[in-house]
Amino acid sequence: MQLAISTDMLVANTHFLADTDPEALGWKTLAVNVSDLAAMGAVPRWVVLAVSLPQADEAWVAAFARGFFSCCQAYGLDAVGGDTTRGPLNLCPTVLGEVPLGQAIQRAGAQVGDMIWVSGQPGRAALALDELLNTSASLAGKWASEAVRADCFQALLRPIPRVALGQALRGVASAMLDVSDGLLGDLSHLLAASQVSAQIQLPDSLVRPLQASGAPVARVFQALLAGGDDYELVFTAAPQYHDMLIKLAATLALPLTPIGTIVPHQPNLIHRLTDPNGQPIVLSRLGYDHFSG
Amino acid sequence: MQLAISTDMLVANTHFLADTDPEALGWKTLAVNVSDLAAMGAVPRWVVLAVSLPQADEAWVAAFARGFFSCCQAYGLDAVGGDTTRGPLNLCPTVLGEVPLGQAIQRAGAQVGDMIWVSGQPGRAALALDELLNTSASLAGKWASEAVRADCFQALLRPIPRVALGQALRGVASAMLDVSDGLLGDLSHLLAASQVSAQIQLPDSLVRPLQASGAPVARVFQALLAGGDDYELVFTAAPQYHDMLIKLAATLALPLTPIGTIVPHQPNLIHRLTDPNGQPIVLSRLGYDHFSG
Repeated sequence: MQLAISTDMLVANTHFLADTDPEALGWKTLAVNVSDLAAMGAVPRWVVLAVSLPQADEAWVAAFARGFFSCCQAYGLDAVGGDTTRGPLNLCPTVLGEVPLGQAIQRAGAQVGDMIWVSGQPGRAALALDELLNTSASLAGKWASEAVRADCFQALLRPIPRVALGQALRGVASAMLDVSDGLLGDLSHLLAASQVSAQIQLPDSLVRPLQASGAPVARVFQALLAGGDDYELVFTAAPQYHDMLIKLAATLALPLTPIGTIVPHQPNLIHRLTDPNGQPIVLSRLGYDHFSG
Repeated sequence: MQLAISTDMLVANTHFLADTDPEALGWKTLAVNVSDLAAMGAVPRWVVLAVSLPQADEAWVAAFARGFFSCCQAYGLDAVGGDTTRGPLNLCPTVLGEVPLGQAIQRAGAQVGDMIWVSGQPGRAALALDELLNTSASLAGKWASEAVRADCFQALLRPIPRVALGQALRGVASAMLDVSDGLLGDLSHLLAASQVSAQIQLPDSLVRPLQASGAPVARVFQALLAGGDDYELVFTAAPQYHDMLIKLAATLALPLTPIGTIVPHQPNLIHRLTDPNGQPIVLSRLGYDHFSG
């Protein structure tokens, strides 16, 4: 077996609001790291957690721990150590996983002709974040239904790392990443590492559910393509795997959607980007940059 | 082999001053974690580093990286990943090491009758910190010599994790910890985990070098017993290992000093504490508590 490792630092007011429900935060702190292991096709095994807290708030810590350990349990991780200290609120989990030797899926490896796939429904977390941050795009009071609002908040606050999918894609996906900073932004990392470009045509099946929220179509494209925080997997695979992937989606009860094709390296990593009608989409920003965002 | 893992979170103005020389900080950030592996008898192998920075200061990052990677090189670690984000200055390394199955040295395991040993010269870092923090005990302008001052600052800013010693103590030490928060404080953790108590008699050989700094004797005792940050190892071993340990000290060119004996569990973990003349020492504070300090 090979060891896979991922570390992440979550900072109050950069990655989450300081008043976030601590139980949800506990879940998400671990889930986003488990997602990194999922993207390598690894089996999550152990976690250590370093935390800095402004003060020792027992109720906060207890709720955080509930969320964190329920995520440990859900994905079979043992919490094997950690560090607690005083300082501005900061959460730093490091997760370890195992993957059979040579079978870890990496961001480099996409081949010209491969299909590009994404799991689940990216973009929902971004719509919820609009409301949390009270941006001009906020749907507060304008959601099409309470159910779709709840669904978007669930995606933001309780993301589901795609662990079973990641493992099932060993030997199938030529390259993979999880979508933490935005679909096109993370895909661009994959493309750059693989030294290829992509043609993307958004399928209606990914656009329609977001439009059902009540958001205008421009915001839907933005959320879908540049919204982070959903922790879906984006991956490439040779066309021969198409039918196998459709079957896998049914087995896992998780949609897997082809969104484009890998093409030879071009000046623009995203060589072409079109909507379900084949019309070009122009986005002002592809993803989230921690130092300019 | 068994995997050993340690994570630590270093927060500006809790663990280090925000204006600390970044190269020294880079070294120390890794060294203190390598020290945790040393205390288990493990061989350091890999490190991931998560960092949050208030802004992208290239010169600062370059100097920090120089120190960090020179420590990687000194102790044979590969830096295999990390995360960089924006936020209050916070450094969170996670180190991984290997130790033969069942041979990891733990804090539980000290037996009644074992001798208590400490490596090197604890207390020097505390004297340097007095000057940095400009406390009433500061020796600024009162150091006995520039050489002893430099020596104390070296201990504070460039601690040397006792990696070779830790590995040599496999099968010898019954329990071990590194001295990060203060000799008696860390020893107390070892005693509590082992459910035993200790009688400590400070040997003159540990007191004299600190007195040579110019510090008054009360401050010397305080620095030696409660000063953190030296990253020496404190361990217990059966008396039969005495001669072997004296030889090992010569081989490693690192003093190993017996400072007391393990006794049955008592109401006070530190059952007796005497100076080189056998007189009781009374300390107001045993170590450093991150939430009350």
